Amino acid sequence: MEEIAVENKQVIFKGYVERAPRETDMEVRIGTVEVKTPKGSGAFLVKNLYLSCDPYMRGRMRDYHGSYIPPFVPGQPIQGFGVSKVVASDNPDFKPGDLVSGITGWEEYSLIQKPEQLRRVQQDDIPLSFNLGLLGMPGLTAYAGFYEVCSPKKGDYVFVSAASGAVGQLVGQLAKLHGCYVVGSAGTSQKVDLLKNKLGFHEAFNYKEEPNLDATLKRYFPEGIDIYFDNVGGDMLDAALLNMRISGRIAVCGMVSLHSLSDPQGIGNLFNLLTKRIRMQGFLQSDYLHLYPKFLEHVINNYRQGKLVYIEDMNEGLESAPAALAGLFSGKNVGKQVIRVAYE
Amino acid sequence: MEEIAVENKQVIFKGYVERAPRETDMEVRIGTVEVKTPKGSGAFLVKNLYLSCDPYMRGRMRDYHGSYIPPFVPGQPIQGFGVSKVVASDNPDFKPGDLVSGITGWEEYSLIQKPEQLRRVQQDDIPLSFNLGLLGMPGLTAYAGFYEVCSPKKGDYVFVSAASGAVGQLVGQLAKLHGCYVVGSAGTSQKVDLLKNKLGFHEAFNYKEEPNLDATLKRYFPEGIDIYFDNVGGDMLDAALLNMRISGRIAVCGMVSLHSLSDPQGIGNLFNLLTKRIRMQGFLQSDYLHLYPKFLEHVINNYRQGKLVYIEDMNEGLESAPAALAGLFSGKNVGKQVIRVAYE
Repeated sequence: MEEIAVENKQVIFKGYVERAPRETDMEVRIGTVEVKTPKGSGAFLVKNLYLSCDPYMRGRMRDYHGSYIPPFVPGQPIQGFGVSKVVASDNPDFKPGDLVSGITGWEEYSLIQKPEQLRRVQQDDIPLSFNLGLLGMPGLTAYAGFYEVCSPKKGDYVFVSAASGAVGQLVGQLAKLHGCYVVGSAGTSQKVDLLKNKLGFHEAFNYKEEPNLDATLKRYFPEGIDIYFDNVGGDMLDAALLNMRISGRIAVCGMVSLHSLSDPQGIGNLFNLLTKRIRMQGFLQSDYLHLYPKFLEHVINNYRQGKLVYIEDMNEGLESAPAALAGLFSGKNVGKQVIRVAYE
Repeated sequence: MEEIAVENKQVIFKGYVERAPRETDMEVRIGTVEVKTPKGSGAFLVKNLYLSCDPYMRGRMRDYHGSYIPPFVPGQPIQGFGVSKVVASDNPDFKPGDLVSGITGWEEYSLIQKPEQLRRVQQDDIPLSFNLGLLGMPGLTAYAGFYEVCSPKKGDYVFVSAASGAVGQLVGQLAKLHGCYVVGSAGTSQKVDLLKNKLGFHEAFNYKEEPNLDATLKRYFPEGIDIYFDNVGGDMLDAALLNMRISGRIAVCGMVSLHSLSDPQGIGNLFNLLTKRIRMQGFLQSDYLHLYPKFLEHVINNYRQGKLVYIEDMNEGLESAPAALAGLFSGKNVGKQVIRVAYE
């Protein structure tokens, strides 16, 4: 059999870290890839177009096997969500030229051996990269988290942290469409401006300029908070606990402020769970995949009617990926962080 | 109008404390009480028979007005649940000789000015004092907390802390009747013995003899915990979080280990809420009063069939009340702490 190997630029995971990822935890190097797929394997080869940087990926960089997803393999390319084009296939469901979205490698070309982790997507009026955000995992996270975990009611006071991020920006907009009053927090004045003037939040604030988050939340929520959609944990969660209303709900979506699992910052104000009968619930979008069609319809309809917008932060080139991933944890990204690896 | 005043021994609340209550925060003194009820007031006078010591009462000794229940008034008698006999009444619904249960004062005689806080009870085959435990607020707390908050399923692995206490002993028995596997923790070997040999827990341990609670829970729950009924908070909650199963539920019923609200011990392992999609919920039995008839029927039926037992720790005399209340916070009580003020 003739072997056809071509150069394949890759972002390699160098080794486990406990702290937040740094650019230097990854390495861009040139490997090779076979452009033929093994006969009878059901595998297919894709050319990666867009790659997604998501906070959950930090968990895969820890040497911890007890999570819902296994860690990355040192010396191998980073894995994550992407949008790709099929270039060769041994799988009748995926033909050369098909566009797919799902788990792929951080490299120019990936041999997909778990086809069940990808689905075909269409090129239409919605940007293809939105499959990594608005229409993808972050979108379903926002949708399921808000509607299924937060039990929203019209008129509820809703607080969203990391509100301009991939998930937060959609939660805020869904909450507003639902008739809630929505306040978001973010870490720069540019993001606060986006929240108020582009994403339609009723109010927004820069938490880095607030010396006392309890007082800040009391200012924005004099009546208290019904729903806290928590993407950050830490001090903000503690302050929110002090400001929840009776029967409030806290959706635990992320703890991006958590710097260490082995020596985590403790949350002190959980007593409020009791006095205010608060429900606090962790969730993963993967438990709500059955809602995917309903979610997609809801989001696409509202997007096409101009009732939803979605902000992306697009980096160019695979070389930019390590810094972009690390940047999530210092809030460098403005909106959903995506890497463009190649033009279609 | 003729005034008839008699001596009335009282337990007076001396003043606000932030720490756990001590015996010296209360004072037994002799006051007086009018044995006639004011005409047209709807009030009635009761002779108190049994008084209840409950951990929530600590909250009423703090100078904190934001809770679900206001603080005690310094210089006035402690208020709490009791079983009493009506001795004079201006209220057609409560006649002299009636037995009542509800909020009364820590004193020999109390003038009841909020009749809606009491209900008539019957003297039958169930001890009258059980209205303060099995059939009262702790009972409904256990019932609502277990069935409504914990979403129990047959075969679930259930962990109960402070398991021999007023609430915990019933939670464990209800869970076992429901087909769950139940382990309880307590603070003395006597209590552990009661849990295993009288209350029917599958296993029990003395947390004070366990240097590493995470390892302890791994030993008792090699498959993990589906339901943690938390009466204590603190280190035990942190250890339980590490041992919860996917989609586990934590009912936050009390945080008796919490020594200070202003400088609380932080809970470090909340990240598990996310990775394991745990629902953690605070609750108060007062939100479930509509279940009271159903609860009472369930508990009384099972009690009469010998399927439920209930352990009381009965102190004799009003003088013993301050030490009994303070004793709750060092685990001195074995079972539901009650004070007998007078024989019927």
